[in-house]
Amino acid sequence: MRLERLATEMLIRAGVSPRHAETVARSLVHADLRAIHSHGMARLAVYLKRVEQGLIDLDQEPSIHKQAGATAIVNGKNHLGAVVGEAALQTALELAEQYGIGVVGVAASNHFGACSYYAEQAVEKGYILILMSNAPKSMAPTGGVRPFFGSNPIAAGIPTGVEPPFLLDMATAVAARGKIALAAQKGEAIPQGWAIDERGRDTTDPVQALRGALLPIAGAKGYGLSMLVDILCGLLTGAGYGPDVHSLYENDFFPQNVGHLFLTLRIENFMPLALFQQQMDTYIRQIKAEPKMEGQDEILIPGEKEWRTAAERRTNGIPLPDEIALELETICAKYQLTLEEARIQ
Amino acid sequence: MRLERLATEMLIRAGVSPRHAETVARSLVHADLRAIHSHGMARLAVYLKRVEQGLIDLDQEPSIHKQAGATAIVNGKNHLGAVVGEAALQTALELAEQYGIGVVGVAASNHFGACSYYAEQAVEKGYILILMSNAPKSMAPTGGVRPFFGSNPIAAGIPTGVEPPFLLDMATAVAARGKIALAAQKGEAIPQGWAIDERGRDTTDPVQALRGALLPIAGAKGYGLSMLVDILCGLLTGAGYGPDVHSLYENDFFPQNVGHLFLTLRIENFMPLALFQQQMDTYIRQIKAEPKMEGQDEILIPGEKEWRTAAERRTNGIPLPDEIALELETICAKYQLTLEEARIQ
Repeated sequence: MRLERLATEMLIRAGVSPRHAETVARSLVHADLRAIHSHGMARLAVYLKRVEQGLIDLDQEPSIHKQAGATAIVNGKNHLGAVVGEAALQTALELAEQYGIGVVGVAASNHFGACSYYAEQAVEKGYILILMSNAPKSMAPTGGVRPFFGSNPIAAGIPTGVEPPFLLDMATAVAARGKIALAAQKGEAIPQGWAIDERGRDTTDPVQALRGALLPIAGAKGYGLSMLVDILCGLLTGAGYGPDVHSLYENDFFPQNVGHLFLTLRIENFMPLALFQQQMDTYIRQIKAEPKMEGQDEILIPGEKEWRTAAERRTNGIPLPDEIALELETICAKYQLTLEEARIQ
Repeated sequence: MRLERLATEMLIRAGVSPRHAETVARSLVHADLRAIHSHGMARLAVYLKRVEQGLIDLDQEPSIHKQAGATAIVNGKNHLGAVVGEAALQTALELAEQYGIGVVGVAASNHFGACSYYAEQAVEKGYILILMSNAPKSMAPTGGVRPFFGSNPIAAGIPTGVEPPFLLDMATAVAARGKIALAAQKGEAIPQGWAIDERGRDTTDPVQALRGALLPIAGAKGYGLSMLVDILCGLLTGAGYGPDVHSLYENDFFPQNVGHLFLTLRIENFMPLALFQQQMDTYIRQIKAEPKMEGQDEILIPGEKEWRTAAERRTNGIPLPDEIALELETICAKYQLTLEEARIQ
């Protein structure tokens, strides 16, 4: 794909090795294919900026720091997040191959793109992946008002036969901080339930919300889930946690020190993979055949909408949002590359 | 504790072996201590009824049906859920001792009480437990109107030093079906966001809600989580899943065939346990010291409120809700036991 080649080339010109550049580019284009533009090429500019500022270390490879039984810790050595994530996924898959399950905690990582990128890979190999990551602070604990936890995502991928795979990829915050920043720029109100102001009151004013904190999903349940992810990804692995996970954007000084947890399950330890896939297909068809709400044509399974979008975009190309295309043109100019070719894959 | 002895005695008189009767009683009293009365002695009557009806098998022990590497499947043999859960927990802890992680899928189980019962045990032994269970249908998939998934809980326990442990125990439905049934009895409205009617419209009428379906937490995210739990606990283990998990109550014919997944982590594989506990204490104090919302005295961590209630009730006894006390009196009469002694522990 041309967009992938373009991103790879940009990363190479910034000093990233060809193999790692390809990994990062694949993870970004994966998100844009699924129309999750917030985790696609929109992140490339800040990745490149951090590489140029020396806030990403390109000269050391992520390595296994501790391995015993079915568990390991991967030290990301502050490499690009997708490079670290890829190494962790491969380690987790190897452990699962041997023990039926693999758990890999990851420290010293960076923003690693969409979780579904890793889930999709595991699924293609016939494994189940459960994946979590912590993130820079944006949410307060329930009862608090100041950002402490990140919007710490939880994701899972489960293989199917011919039906689209189960690909769940969800933040534990109701809405992304970026959406609120965008509303503030446009002077628009945000929906109730997204955020609180600095005194802890519900607010629909994005400016107040940015001074306050994001709300977790489902009240105290989301706070609990976010804290769980933070402990497993950060405290347990030696990565940053709580407010010590540093920002990708407003931070010219510190490595992010993001932590992740990769948990891979080998289905064959439980039942033959082919039988599992067949049962998943039947199960999904059964769900989709359930009676629908008024005005609802069909029931989708998690990740199905994005799966279809990706299939369509693989054929017809990715219509990049204008502001991302503009940003890429700036990078192109800097590295003497042309965007034209890449726009239509 | 007297209530525990009473419940044990009741179960023994119904034919349960003393050891298993103690396990079930402990799990029920655990919930009542924490004021989670929905999962405490309130369940004893239906457990006993199902034992008497022959819908629970007391003559076979749960057994390990498949073990390879760090994974196992426990066949519950349709014993009481807490008996099955206890066996699965011990298996998962042994696997984690050996491999750093243990994953035990459980089939042919029954309602196994509050997840926090198992999480608390793991925590006392210095292990992290992540636990899920599927449950009889009550929620529709997003876009659907008919119950298909259960309110499938997700729970986690994480050890601390001197601070209360992290004990998260959450349903993936907004509210329990029992609360809606209670509102219907009393002729009261239910809050918006709990349920939909049979055409998929939001409803505050509990009668309409009971004909419709419960809503998952956080919209499609809760639907995704509930489906994930169902696949891991049911489809992967050989237990029932989707509408094939049978009801505890309105079902005089079928074993429930509930499925669970126990995932235990050995902290020492990642860092010394004492250091982990100390860092957890510091982390919790840091969260509790965050600035509070107006009118909020303190920030609680998941499970802290229930932890305090349990400590207080261990000293002062459990004030059982009247309807539960009445139910116990009926059972007492049947088995020629007296409740009096047990009321104040």
